[in-house]
Amino acid sequence: MNPSHRTSIRVLYGDTDKMGFAYYGNYMRWFEIGRSQLFRSWGFSYKSIEEKGVFLPVSEAFCKYVTPVKYDDQLIVETRFDPSVKAGIKFDYRIFSMEKEVLCASGYTLHACMNPEGRVIRPPRFLSQLLREHTGSPSDKKEGS
Amino acid sequence: MNPSHRTSIRVLYGDTDKMGFAYYGNYMRWFEIGRSQLFRSWGFSYKSIEEKGVFLPVSEAFCKYVTPVKYDDQLIVETRFDPSVKAGIKFDYRIFSMEKEVLCASGYTLHACMNPEGRVIRPPRFLSQLLREHTGSPSDKKEGS
Amino acid sequence: MNPSHRTSIRVLYGDTDKMGFAYYGNYMRWFEIGRSQLFRSWGFSYKSIEEKGVFLPVSEAFCKYVTPVKYDDQLIVETRFDPSVKAGIKFDYRIFSMEKEVLCASGYTLHACMNPEGRVIRPPRFLSQLLREHTGSPSDKKEGS
Amino acid sequence: MNPSHRTSIRVLYGDTDKMGFAYYGNYMRWFEIGRSQLFRSWGFSYKSIEEKGVFLPVSEAFCKYVTPVKYDDQLIVETRFDPSVKAGIKFDYRIFSMEKEVLCASGYTLHACMNPEGRVIRPPRFLSQLLREHTGSPSDKKEGS
Repeated sequence: MNPSHRTSIRVLYGDTDKMGFAYYGNYMRWFEIGRSQLFRSWGFSYKSIEEKGVFLPVSEAFCKYVTPVKYDDQLIVETRFDPSVKAGIKFDYRIFSMEKEVLCASGYTLHACMNPEGRVIRPPRFLSQLLREHTGSPSDKKEGS
Repeated sequence: MNPSHRTSIRVLYGDTDKMGFAYYGNYMRWFEIGRSQLFRSWGFSYKSIEEKGVFLPVSEAFCKYVTPVKYDDQLIVETRFDPSVKAGIKFDYRIFSMEKEVLCASGYTLHACMNPEGRVIRPPRFLSQLLREHTGSPSDKKEGS
Repeated sequence: MNPSHRTSIRVLYGDTDKMGFAYYGNYMRWFEIGRSQLFRSWGFSYKSIEEKGVFLPVSEAFCKYVTPVKYDDQLIVETRFDPSVKAGIKFDYRIFSMEKEVLCASGYTLHACMNPEGRVIRPPRFLSQLLREHTGSPSDKKEGS
Repeated sequence: MNPSHRTSIRVLYGDTDKMGFAYYGNYMRWFEIGRSQLFRSWGFSYKSIEEKGVFLPVSEAFCKYVTPVKYDDQLIVETRFDPSVKAGIKFDYRIFSMEKEVLCASGYTLHACMNPEGRVIRPPRFLSQLLREHTGSPSDKKEGS
């Protein structure tokens, strides 16, 4: 089983728009919080990955907005690495309302691996090992990504 | 033929992140500029639609980041209404670099129709007529846009 | 003594700009987090104040940027209500780096009191009482704000 | 006389908050647009200044919010270099509503001069000359403006 990580955030006034809900673009920041906390839970900050000369720019992002979220709502961002995707590094997200326990949004981001010169590269060994270690499925061990 | 609308934007310092490119979440603002200018080119601001009691919250958003954009780049946001989607109102976007004429990003947003009480409704007549007039379904053929 | 409240935040990738530091406008979000957590520590969310029909729009904001903050830095936002200002409600902020214990920024926001119709009003009783109760100085008792 | 530069912007949905007005932090982006267009009107983009190895991080920012601005409002950002301040580079801003011709906000930003290593430096010659040339010449020699 591929474990997920949960982190909580609170909707700021600056996140909302005149409709009274959070602006759709701001969910991308929450996805960022989700994946950075997932990395951190693995004992590896995303910052430390960049310090090794590896950047993970977003190559695709998707979000389905299911239930609007409002100012001051406390949300759970659930993040999971998706080991089934080989062309890039993919994270899946689900955002829940903490109080009402309803699904507010779901989505994913796909990331390329880039060197400091801006060239797309294959994930270096330390990174593919890190991803493999933390996805938990036995079959992952055989996947020489 | 379904005509597109083109509007130009310039990448702010505040749009960039430490990688030196525009942060992925900020493209959603550019998509918003694209569709609001498309509405305006139809002689109808999105604001005036809300004033008639119709809101168009985003129900899905997708973006594929093809070529990174940098600070001060001048970009073209090309927006097109997609009449083939019936469950919601869909806009397609392509973002080009003005100087290099390369595709920087493409994506879409899907919108629900909502009344002031927050209930999802069918697009009211004035709106579906507006969309039909400006797209290219049968009656559009006479409109040599 | 007028007690302050401390809350911690982490600098997101989306907060940074191409200079590698946090964009100056984003500090305003951190100030918002500071004052909303101060309210919460008083047993009163800002949301609940709005639910009583009182809005506190920002009428002035100031920030002095002392030491740049970087991606993934953990910051302390220290917020204090300033009872000395009578024309409006003023909060003072200081932002510290958690690791280096240096002052990164300081500033304030001044807020008007507004009713749901958008008219500036005097702070209603429950609010002036709340502010008085939580500033702690004996002299506050005499200040019939 | 010290000439000002005027540029126009339109308030996005993403700029607004649940109060229905533009979020106070977003004005800082408009100030950025103002000063970057002022530089451009001088025949020098801020980008080209950075390309010469000179960075102008914000060291202070202030904004007074006079009249709330709403979604889709068209605003004029009026920017002026303030030659009277010698410790840093200061720009003054005034934001007007285009339709109602009322003052919506005023403020300033103060900038340090920084080299690529992050050290504060004195403005290099090309920059102080540029600033001097564009502020009202004759009287500037006496720096009385």
